[in-house]
Amino acid sequence: MQQLMEMDLAAVAGIRSEQVNWRFKGLPSSTFGRTVGEVADERLDLFADEFVGPLVVLDEDALAHNLTTMAAWCEGHGVRLAPHGKTTMAPQLFQRQAEHGAWGITAANASQVRVYRAFGVSRVLLANQLLDPAALRWLVTELDSDPRFEFSCWADSEAGVALMSETLQELQPGRPVDVLVELGAPGGRTGARDLETALAVARAVDQSPVLRLAGAAGYEGALAHDASTSSQAVIDGYLADLRTLVLRLADAGMLDELDSAIVTAGGSAYFDQVAATLAQPWPLPVTPVLRSGAYITHDDGFYRGISPFARIEGVQPFRPALRAWAQVTSRPQRDLALLTIGKRDASFDEGLPEPQLLRRRDGAVAPLTQATVTALNDQHAFLKLGPEATVRVGDWVGLGLSHPCTVFDKWQLIPVVRGTTVVDLIRTYF
Amino acid sequence: MQQLMEMDLAAVAGIRSEQVNWRFKGLPSSTFGRTVGEVADERLDLFADEFVGPLVVLDEDALAHNLTTMAAWCEGHGVRLAPHGKTTMAPQLFQRQAEHGAWGITAANASQVRVYRAFGVSRVLLANQLLDPAALRWLVTELDSDPRFEFSCWADSEAGVALMSETLQELQPGRPVDVLVELGAPGGRTGARDLETALAVARAVDQSPVLRLAGAAGYEGALAHDASTSSQAVIDGYLADLRTLVLRLADAGMLDELDSAIVTAGGSAYFDQVAATLAQPWPLPVTPVLRSGAYITHDDGFYRGISPFARIEGVQPFRPALRAWAQVTSRPQRDLALLTIGKRDASFDEGLPEPQLLRRRDGAVAPLTQATVTALNDQHAFLKLGPEATVRVGDWVGLGLSHPCTVFDKWQLIPVVRGTTVVDLIRTYF
Repeated sequence: MQQLMEMDLAAVAGIRSEQVNWRFKGLPSSTFGRTVGEVADERLDLFADEFVGPLVVLDEDALAHNLTTMAAWCEGHGVRLAPHGKTTMAPQLFQRQAEHGAWGITAANASQVRVYRAFGVSRVLLANQLLDPAALRWLVTELDSDPRFEFSCWADSEAGVALMSETLQELQPGRPVDVLVELGAPGGRTGARDLETALAVARAVDQSPVLRLAGAAGYEGALAHDASTSSQAVIDGYLADLRTLVLRLADAGMLDELDSAIVTAGGSAYFDQVAATLAQPWPLPVTPVLRSGAYITHDDGFYRGISPFARIEGVQPFRPALRAWAQVTSRPQRDLALLTIGKRDASFDEGLPEPQLLRRRDGAVAPLTQATVTALNDQHAFLKLGPEATVRVGDWVGLGLSHPCTVFDKWQLIPVVRGTTVVDLIRTYF
Repeated sequence: MQQLMEMDLAAVAGIRSEQVNWRFKGLPSSTFGRTVGEVADERLDLFADEFVGPLVVLDEDALAHNLTTMAAWCEGHGVRLAPHGKTTMAPQLFQRQAEHGAWGITAANASQVRVYRAFGVSRVLLANQLLDPAALRWLVTELDSDPRFEFSCWADSEAGVALMSETLQELQPGRPVDVLVELGAPGGRTGARDLETALAVARAVDQSPVLRLAGAAGYEGALAHDASTSSQAVIDGYLADLRTLVLRLADAGMLDELDSAIVTAGGSAYFDQVAATLAQPWPLPVTPVLRSGAYITHDDGFYRGISPFARIEGVQPFRPALRAWAQVTSRPQRDLALLTIGKRDASFDEGLPEPQLLRRRDGAVAPLTQATVTALNDQHAFLKLGPEATVRVGDWVGLGLSHPCTVFDKWQLIPVVRGTTVVDLIRTYF
């Protein structure tokens, strides 16, 4: 369990062979018919080379900074990282996470695991129960055909364990499926609501001939939503319970056969507390694993507000790597402009886009003040303007975004820029 | 302008040649490697044939009903239909709309028009300004290479007209670009705020050698959000102004060179009022065009509440054609179950999914009562349960959805079912 994940690098490189065409919104029509790799290598200019709006781009320097910063922090704090791949669903970014020491990639459902396996991700945490017989059948085929594939999913009820066991016993897998018992908390999301329930689930896993108890899992992010002292205390209390669960499993001898038990928690809001609790010394071999996914792009909204690195002194904060560009096509009132970007293009569930830059038709770029996005329709953004705003029809607005997950799922091919030069194209698979 | 739209039927049929694989969430792993057409023809069963959750499906009978109902209604009310294709971005559904008499397809931005043109849509209304030089360059290439391609976009400012003209004069298109002057209203979205402004915009179009004034456009849906008497009065007032605008344009001689002027409005909430105003006799040849898009699937939320057919007697209401299926994977508290479906899979911007059906593991399906979705996370739904609810881990829940636009953009290949038999697969291009 200590070695890092691997990927099928040829499969990732194969993305470069896909043809760019009208399927990819925002890409220049002049690139149609060439491959992703050819277009990525052309070093197109974001503004001079006929990209059409709306457009979302990734900033290479911010990506590189975030990858390096998170890797160093995890290394320094004694935790492994299995970043949640649901954020980007981008194998090219998974590869960069792997190159920065990722231990595995986390998934949310079976369809996501299928994408990961198409790119040979060797270690997957499925941060969910897996009860669907069709998905279990596919999983067993994968496990049986690739002995290097390591997979764990969650279990939080004896009923769920029974369903998994029933299906798997019919399938007779060549090796048991690894399961982490999931601890939740009252008011939370999934997960057993108390230690005794979690222990009962663990015993059920332990007794199933087709399952192997591989450790314990949790998710603290459902229990609090800000960085207040009381929220942090709730998180610490929950993490202490998760630690106690692992110790109780060890005391009961249920982790004895493992080289190293997995204990995992950690979204992107409280991973400092997760590391502080889960990387403390253990009386048995334990691999503490964070699953934060949003760090790779960070954001200009929700995560900017709640990231631990915003409140820890001496740490380089993550940098926002996502930016949208949209044109001002209408200014029908002095205090209102409309941008051609909407709910199909930008996230809106954890805060609306933040106008940051104004690009004039002559190419001059300046900070945009006195402008706020007040609403998104499907394909329009309402930009409320202050009395001094000089936004003109034909200008372009650069927007910061909040909540990267719901940005990536709106774009299948995203230019990566250094300055205004496109240095790569990132393919997503949602 | 009177003839109906055409499409490149070979291109639409070509969708059937695409390979089904791990890129398409929810599809059975057993179908991977076969083509969309092969899988569509297999008559798979939604529950017996290894689809994995979460899954969204389209109901064939509801689709057929909605297509027929809307076509008959438009025919009976003297209006043409250019359904807004942004709802589905599905050329196979555009083809069915064309077969039901659609006059054109409406788009929201240049990237959408590129998709339409890849499938040969012969008449496109771009319900937006088009000022982006890169997009205009592509458009001119399309117009010059296909004399049958009819395109109109909106203009709501003299500044916008000047920008269009400047770019187009450099490009020297073989024919002028058709423009509809857009009338808005105070408090609305885009569109000139009064008749005099709209007339000034129209004059600017009329005077441009590279533009042709083709009529007038509006969107009443931004001005009201319910079916109250006062909302309906606001809508009627706006539509009367739009009618007046066309008459003023005609009086000024600006529509004299047209075979038929276009006048268009109509989302999915007030299209009855649009038809009532715009299909009244005109003193000049006018083609009144509705642009409603959501009717094709209708919904179980926002449009159910606001559709005119819900309040007009003697009309068959539209039927909801979208349904999501997700498995109950956790029931950690008596009053809470978690479903493996979230913001990546289901719409949440105009109301949360509505639990409707419960499917037991033995295949029995029954109405689900005492259950409400209270929140969606990225990949989870919170199902609040009443005291009598008998939801069990392993059951599947069928959910109605609100706002089809933000469902379609989360699915690239959607099974169409009759009962539980899959009769087609619909490809979307977002």
